Amino acid sequence: MCRDGVGRPALRHEMYPQTARTAHPRTIPARASVGGGYPFPAMTEFFRVRTVAEALESFRPAHRVGVESVPVERGGGRTLARDIVGAHPLPGFARSTVDGFAVRATDTFGASESLPAYLEILGAVEMGAIAQIAVTTGTTLDVPTGGALPEGADAVVMVEHTSRAGSDRVEVMRPVAPGENVVGPDEDARPGDVLAPCGRSLRPQDAGMLAAAGVVGVEVWRRPSVAIVSTGDEVVPVDTDVLAPGRVRDANAPALALLVEELGGEPVLHGIVPDDPLALESTCRAALADADVLVVSAGSSVGTRDATGDVVSRLGEPGIWCHGLAVKPGKPTLLADVGGKPVIGLPGNPLSALVVMRLVGGNVVALVGGRSAPELSRRPARLARNVASATGRFDVVQVRLSGDDAHPIFGRSAQLSVLTAADGFITIADAVQGLAKGSDVVVECYR
Amino acid sequence: MCRDGVGRPALRHEMYPQTARTAHPRTIPARASVGGGYPFPAMTEFFRVRTVAEALESFRPAHRVGVESVPVERGGGRTLARDIVGAHPLPGFARSTVDGFAVRATDTFGASESLPAYLEILGAVEMGAIAQIAVTTGTTLDVPTGGALPEGADAVVMVEHTSRAGSDRVEVMRPVAPGENVVGPDEDARPGDVLAPCGRSLRPQDAGMLAAAGVVGVEVWRRPSVAIVSTGDEVVPVDTDVLAPGRVRDANAPALALLVEELGGEPVLHGIVPDDPLALESTCRAALADADVLVVSAGSSVGTRDATGDVVSRLGEPGIWCHGLAVKPGKPTLLADVGGKPVIGLPGNPLSALVVMRLVGGNVVALVGGRSAPELSRRPARLARNVASATGRFDVVQVRLSGDDAHPIFGRSAQLSVLTAADGFITIADAVQGLAKGSDVVVECYR
Repeated sequence: MCRDGVGRPALRHEMYPQTARTAHPRTIPARASVGGGYPFPAMTEFFRVRTVAEALESFRPAHRVGVESVPVERGGGRTLARDIVGAHPLPGFARSTVDGFAVRATDTFGASESLPAYLEILGAVEMGAIAQIAVTTGTTLDVPTGGALPEGADAVVMVEHTSRAGSDRVEVMRPVAPGENVVGPDEDARPGDVLAPCGRSLRPQDAGMLAAAGVVGVEVWRRPSVAIVSTGDEVVPVDTDVLAPGRVRDANAPALALLVEELGGEPVLHGIVPDDPLALESTCRAALADADVLVVSAGSSVGTRDATGDVVSRLGEPGIWCHGLAVKPGKPTLLADVGGKPVIGLPGNPLSALVVMRLVGGNVVALVGGRSAPELSRRPARLARNVASATGRFDVVQVRLSGDDAHPIFGRSAQLSVLTAADGFITIADAVQGLAKGSDVVVECYR
Repeated sequence: MCRDGVGRPALRHEMYPQTARTAHPRTIPARASVGGGYPFPAMTEFFRVRTVAEALESFRPAHRVGVESVPVERGGGRTLARDIVGAHPLPGFARSTVDGFAVRATDTFGASESLPAYLEILGAVEMGAIAQIAVTTGTTLDVPTGGALPEGADAVVMVEHTSRAGSDRVEVMRPVAPGENVVGPDEDARPGDVLAPCGRSLRPQDAGMLAAAGVVGVEVWRRPSVAIVSTGDEVVPVDTDVLAPGRVRDANAPALALLVEELGGEPVLHGIVPDDPLALESTCRAALADADVLVVSAGSSVGTRDATGDVVSRLGEPGIWCHGLAVKPGKPTLLADVGGKPVIGLPGNPLSALVVMRLVGGNVVALVGGRSAPELSRRPARLARNVASATGRFDVVQVRLSGDDAHPIFGRSAQLSVLTAADGFITIADAVQGLAKGSDVVVECYR
C-alpha cells in the first residue's frame, strides 16, 4: 500500500463530484511521513466518477464464457447458448382436450336439450393408441382427455353435454363446431418453431417443451466464475476465534459468494491479501487468469482504495473505466476492463459492497454469461416516511416491509445489521431530490 | 387403470361444483364394456373440491425434514433450523466511518471556516491496529475509514472539513458531536442479539453477518426430497426418438424437476408407470418411503384420475384431503396426507400441472422444509384486455409483459406453448368475476 506521503487537497469535498461529467485527474504532491512513526495513508481523489445508469449501459467488457452441454432436467436457470428449433409438430396428432365423444361436427348441428342428436357409440379411444375404427356419419367414439382424435372425427362433444341412451347410444344436447375441444397436431409447436430461444434462462415450462420435443440435452453458457479477493491489513479469516483489537473478520467474502451464486455465477474465494501492492497484484493476476470476472473487496480507507486502483491499473488494458460511482452507499467503486474481463473493486464496507455488487455486479455477471440482467423480485409499496436524496446521486435505501408499508432503515454503510434487517431496497434516481412519505415505491426484494 | 364399465351420470356439469363446500361422494354404478372391444374409461366425479385458499391455509401434513450442517459460504438459500445468537459485540471496537481526524468533540465546539480549531497531529491510526498514542485535549490522530478510534477520542472530523496547517497541525472548520462519524463497538450487534433467525432463508447479508461474528457453519433444514412419478399408457420416455401415433413424451417430469429445484426441493425422478393400479401403487409406496413429498403426474383422462385417486387412497391414513381444486387450469388436482407426508396428484396437462405445482406445491415443499411459502418475483402491470372469470373459481391467467402492459395469453391447458410464451401470471380470486382492461394487476414473474 502506498502509505508514503501524499498531500491532501485542502477542500476534500471537491473530490466528490456529484455528476458523471466531472473527470479531471489530478497530480497529488508527495508529503513526508510525520508524527510518532505513523505513516499517513496515501490519498487520491475519485478521478473518474460515473453514474449507475452509465455503468449499466456502457461498462461492457468483451469477454464471454464458453458453452457446455447439460441434460435438460439439470438445466434449471442455465442460459441457452443457441435457439432450440423443433423438427416435428407437437403434440404430433390431434388430441381431445376433454372427456367426451369424438364426432363429425355436422352431426351435431342443431342439437339441443329438447331435440338431441342420437349417435351410435362404436367403441372408445384408448390412451396412447390410435382407434382402429373411424367415425362415420351418425357414429361416435368415446374419447378421454388427451386421447387421439379418431379418423373421420373433427370435433369432440364434452361428456357434460351428452346423455347415455342405452349401452351403445348417446344423446348430444349441444352442437360443436369443427375443431372444437381438439388440439391440432401442430398447435403446440410447428416444425421449425423456436421451442426455446438463445439467451433464455431455462424455466420449468421450457424444459417441458424441450422434453415434449424429445430434446434431452441443451447447450448452455458456462456459469461465469467469479474470483473474490479480499484485501486489508485489518481483515482476518472468518474462523479466527478471538479478534485482536482493530481487526475484523472477512465478512465480505462469504456474503459475496452467496450473492455471486444468486447472480448465476460460481464464486471462487481467493482468501485475504494484506495491504501490499505486489502481493495484491500477484493474487489478482493469478485469479483473473482462471476466472471470468474478478471482484476485489478492498478496504474502505482511501489508502487501500488507492492501492487497489494502482494495482488494477497495472493488470492490463484498457484498464480503469470508473473510479467512483455516483451512488450512496457505494461511492468508492472501481470498474475496470482488463483484456476484456471485468474487474470490480468494491468498497470495503459490507453493506456498500453488497449494494454495489447487486446493482452493478449483477449486470456484469449476466453480460459475461450471455444473459440479460437478472430481474430482482419486486413489489409495490408505500413509503412510510420521507427520504432525502441529493440530486445527481443515485440512492439505494434499505427498507423493511410491513404489509404494504416500506419503512426506510437508516444506518451507516459500515453496518451489516442494516442489511440483515432489510427485506429489500428502493432506489432514488439521480434526478430526484427525495421521496415524500406516502409515495408509491417499488421495492426490490431480497428473497 | 379401472377401465371396466362405469355409467356416466347424465348431467356431467353437476360433477364440477364451483365452490369448496360441495362435498357429496357418489356411488357410480358399474356398466358393461361395449363396442368393438374398446373398454370404456371408468369415471367418477370430483368428490371433494376445495379452494386454493383452503389448500394454502389448511393442507398441512405433519412431516418435516431433518437438519444438517453446512458451511456458511455454501448455505445460500438454505433455511436456518435455529436462531443464531451472537456471543460478542460487533464490530467489537469503535470504528471511524470516514477518513478524517479522531478528536475530543469538545475541542471542535464553535469551530468554523472563519475561526477554525487548531489541533496537533500526533500520528495516524493504522488499519487493523490500535493506536499506541491517546488523543488528548488539543491533539488528534489521522484515522482512515474503518480504523479503530484511538483512546481519548470520542468523534471523528471528516477530512473534507479540515485543512492542513503545516506538517503536524490541522485546522478543523466544523464542530462534531460526541459519537459523530463513529460506529460504536456493539452498534452492529450486541452479545445475545439474534444474528439470523430460525426459518430464515440464508441471504448474502446474513452470511456476511454470521461471518463477521465468526460463525463458520450453520444448521439448516435438509432440502425436501420430492419424488416425481409419471403415469399414463400414452406417456413414453423423453429420449424416445420416433413417437408412435397417440403417444407423447414425458414432458412433465423434467419440467417438474426444474420447478421443484426452484421451490427449494430436490427432485427424484421415478420414471413412467403404465396405467396399472398395482404397478402405480407399488411405485408410489417405494417412492414415498424415501421421499418427503410425493408428486404423481397423472394422465388427464377421468379414468387415470380415478385410478390415481384409488391408489393414493390405499397408500395410508388419513388419506385424500381434496380431489378437485377450484382453480382454472388445474381442477383435477388431488391432495393427500399419507402418514404425515404430502402427496400431490397433478393434472396430466403440462400447463395445468405446472400451474398447480407452483401455486400449491410451492407451499407444500416449503412447509415440509421448515420454511414459509416462497414469494415469487412480482411486478405491477396494467391489464391489456378484459379477462372473464367464474365466481367461486380461482383463475390463473398466463400473461406476456410488454413494458407495463400485461397481455393475457389464452390457450388450452394442454398447450405448453402458452406457458413458454408467458413471462408470468396473474390470479383472479374466487369472489371476483373478471378484470377489466386497464386494471392494475400484480404479475407473478417467471425468472
